[in-house]
Amino acid sequence: MEQAVTPRRRPRRSKDAGIQQLPWRRYRNHYKPIEVLTEEQVERIHDASLRILEEQGMEFLDAEAREILKRAGADVEEGGLRVRFDRGLILESVAKTPSEVTLHSRNPERALTFGGNHVNFGCVASAPNVNDLDRGRRPGKFDDYTALLKLVQSFNIVHFMSGYPVEPADLPPTTRHLDALGAALTMTDKVIHAYSLGRERIADAIELVCRARGIDRDRLAREPGLFSIVNTNSPLRLDIPMLQGLMEMARHRQPVCITPFTLSGAMAPATIAGALTLQNAEALAGIAFIQMVSPGSPALYGGFTSNVDMKSGAPAFGTPEYVRAAFAGGQLARRYRIPYRSSNACAANAVDGQAAYESEMSIWGAVMGGVNMLLHGTGWMEGGLVASFEKFVLDVEMLQMMGEFLQPIVVDEDALGLDAIREVGPGGHFFGAAHTLARYDTAFYPPILSDWRNYETWREAGALDTAQRANVIWKRAAELYEEPAMDSACKEAVWDFVERRKREGGVSQA
Amino acid sequence: MEQAVTPRRRPRRSKDAGIQQLPWRRYRNHYKPIEVLTEEQVERIHDASLRILEEQGMEFLDAEAREILKRAGADVEEGGLRVRFDRGLILESVAKTPSEVTLHSRNPERALTFGGNHVNFGCVASAPNVNDLDRGRRPGKFDDYTALLKLVQSFNIVHFMSGYPVEPADLPPTTRHLDALGAALTMTDKVIHAYSLGRERIADAIELVCRARGIDRDRLAREPGLFSIVNTNSPLRLDIPMLQGLMEMARHRQPVCITPFTLSGAMAPATIAGALTLQNAEALAGIAFIQMVSPGSPALYGGFTSNVDMKSGAPAFGTPEYVRAAFAGGQLARRYRIPYRSSNACAANAVDGQAAYESEMSIWGAVMGGVNMLLHGTGWMEGGLVASFEKFVLDVEMLQMMGEFLQPIVVDEDALGLDAIREVGPGGHFFGAAHTLARYDTAFYPPILSDWRNYETWREAGALDTAQRANVIWKRAAELYEEPAMDSACKEAVWDFVERRKREGGVSQA
Repeated sequence: MEQAVTPRRRPRRSKDAGIQQLPWRRYRNHYKPIEVLTEEQVERIHDASLRILEEQGMEFLDAEAREILKRAGADVEEGGLRVRFDRGLILESVAKTPSEVTLHSRNPERALTFGGNHVNFGCVASAPNVNDLDRGRRPGKFDDYTALLKLVQSFNIVHFMSGYPVEPADLPPTTRHLDALGAALTMTDKVIHAYSLGRERIADAIELVCRARGIDRDRLAREPGLFSIVNTNSPLRLDIPMLQGLMEMARHRQPVCITPFTLSGAMAPATIAGALTLQNAEALAGIAFIQMVSPGSPALYGGFTSNVDMKSGAPAFGTPEYVRAAFAGGQLARRYRIPYRSSNACAANAVDGQAAYESEMSIWGAVMGGVNMLLHGTGWMEGGLVASFEKFVLDVEMLQMMGEFLQPIVVDEDALGLDAIREVGPGGHFFGAAHTLARYDTAFYPPILSDWRNYETWREAGALDTAQRANVIWKRAAELYEEPAMDSACKEAVWDFVERRKREGGVSQA
Repeated sequence: MEQAVTPRRRPRRSKDAGIQQLPWRRYRNHYKPIEVLTEEQVERIHDASLRILEEQGMEFLDAEAREILKRAGADVEEGGLRVRFDRGLILESVAKTPSEVTLHSRNPERALTFGGNHVNFGCVASAPNVNDLDRGRRPGKFDDYTALLKLVQSFNIVHFMSGYPVEPADLPPTTRHLDALGAALTMTDKVIHAYSLGRERIADAIELVCRARGIDRDRLAREPGLFSIVNTNSPLRLDIPMLQGLMEMARHRQPVCITPFTLSGAMAPATIAGALTLQNAEALAGIAFIQMVSPGSPALYGGFTSNVDMKSGAPAFGTPEYVRAAFAGGQLARRYRIPYRSSNACAANAVDGQAAYESEMSIWGAVMGGVNMLLHGTGWMEGGLVASFEKFVLDVEMLQMMGEFLQPIVVDEDALGLDAIREVGPGGHFFGAAHTLARYDTAFYPPILSDWRNYETWREAGALDTAQRANVIWKRAAELYEEPAMDSACKEAVWDFVERRKREGGVSQA
């Protein structure tokens, strides 16, 4: 009665030296996204967010940004920070955003398209701390940063680097981005992110990406190679470092993702509809501003709406509110035909059941919400305060499973298997059928982390739980890491620039 | 940058003595189910499954069943077990199935409708073992059975009893069903399941349900009160005990769910399409047979297709193959307008990350596959070999979250919160806004198991992981359990029957 059948022993496939994982591949979502809002509700949120921008506007803290907004026709408060927008201006500007953008890295095979039904997964970003079972929780250092970069490169399901997996806080702030980007561009060959923390850091990142690929600025503009996340300071504010980075990115026509930090009950109203309205207002204002800086420059619509625990004020992720907001965010992004960014977020403190179920809720919200760019895909914990090595592997498994879920079911004469059903007959077994043997190696998704052995075998093998198994796997992946091939002149050019800028003292502002 | 904000301390709501959980309520899924098959693919599987029933047919091991099939026009092999079906006969018979059925228990408030967009969650069923963190893994006994019944009754998200949460194997097989059903009907007031293990056990169950409700057989036929899962012995066989139970149920017009046990690569072809085709053939044959026994009697379409680990033959659950089959199963059930049953299945050995992510995959597959009856909703582990007390609570949390996800987003003037956004202004905070305070207690889903405290606070409080917290919660729920009110005459009538039938020796066959 629906219990496990007794496993029949089959010879195990010979273990190769590497880690059994899915090959590098790009994903598309051929299923219809889940829609939690009616069309009328989408229009109502759209309209309310435009009313916010008309009536209340938003604060742009940077003077140059306000100058650009004024020239573009926005209503900039005299001597103040507040900028109000006519809805026509917003919609005309937003409409200039390309509906998809392809990002290139130094390895042509790693190019990724964001938009349409393309689905791309990135690693954890911006955590101040790291955690692993051996060494415990601690502030991040450059050693941890490079250790995580190895995992980013080693796991095929990680399509891009979402930002620093952990902040390498032992490096000086004025030159940290140089070492961090130099390492990312040489230790991985995947698409990278650069932080919009002032103009100079972005300028350095653009130079480094050009050097890593051996290309000039014109080619970079035609074939973008880095992206940046710009978080609004919700509610209704954009700060100077973010705006300066945004402008530098847009001028080089590199994609910027505007992600309002609309935590319902804290930085946004304590209703999903209210938080989405604020998210939409801020995202539209940011995306419109990108188009004012550089018409036709690529942009993404970021959804990060979640809620707080009303009892404590603590942020929560992967909640029922979060997942509905993720689906709704996708509906809004598609309303404007702008690529959609979401996250794999969780608030758990340990790599346990909660970590998995909160992340699954986030991943389903993203993928079936029509996500094009999944940030924090692997390793994000504690609401972003920790990059966990074991959570990294847990997420690799969950994302691989989602990638497999996105593969359409084949229904043809061969797959239907009527001959096999005839061959086996009532009460028979398919293990030995020709139809089964022909698919022996490829029939089903092979897990990287799941343990399907029966209880007795599992216990005899040490009764390792999911986190303990993940610990073994990331260490193995780190051991097996090999630096991807790189043109030696490009590599030298990257490090030359890093060293020169470090000698110069890096950026002027910490 | 997308990290947790520092929690602001708010006074905690006073803890009441009970367990903070969602109220008893029924769920509907207003979202459009996920469709992984095109319409053409659905038709192709439909056609192939009818070809199987025409060309190969199915073995019906019970002679009376074959007699009924023959009279209804099926092609019964002379002197054999094989029954072949004209597709017209199958489709005409299946079309007699009601598109929805309401099940009643002795508490009118617990009535549940299966069909349409109704979503109902049941507990773990039929596990031979139990597990909890205090006492470890062990064969199930009647004490464990009643301990789990208390949880079934105590948690509102559990709508019905899916079967024995654990097999009370210390009771004699001939009378076990009497004690088990007596306990279920008195210790809970929820809809129950009875096992189709021969005619007599079902006859006893029907008598007991009538006595518990104080009603006669006619009323039970009009207002069904129990359901039974009939697993085909895939491939293409239905055994005697199941068929006899099925016939007894159908004659009393109690719903039977036909669930083929189509484990891809073992009891079904090693392709999703092939396994679905076999599932569909067996489900249609079983449902058609129900209609031949008792035209218009309620039935459900059960999907349980998963895959084995090809390396070891071990069954796997919550896999990418499983989840696509769950969505496809819903499409097939809706093709015939028959209520759909799916499961919350996992293969994990511990209440850890794997248990959560495999279950989440299963739950999403079920709920967004349009499930009406979710079996094994709370507590199922190890592919059905274990009922876990901690997994029970983990699943309660995951199902509650799914229930909340099913609540449509309210988008009206009040929810949009434009006044609050105006009141708070750029850079402000919503914690103190009137709009927030008015929603303080009801704004967001309050978790039962998730721990959202920051790392330091969580560590100081003992660093309990999800399974350890679940352990505290189920013990608290067991302590707080109260037997639901019951008419004393009905209760007496139930136990009178149990005692009489036990004195008589119970059923004739073990």
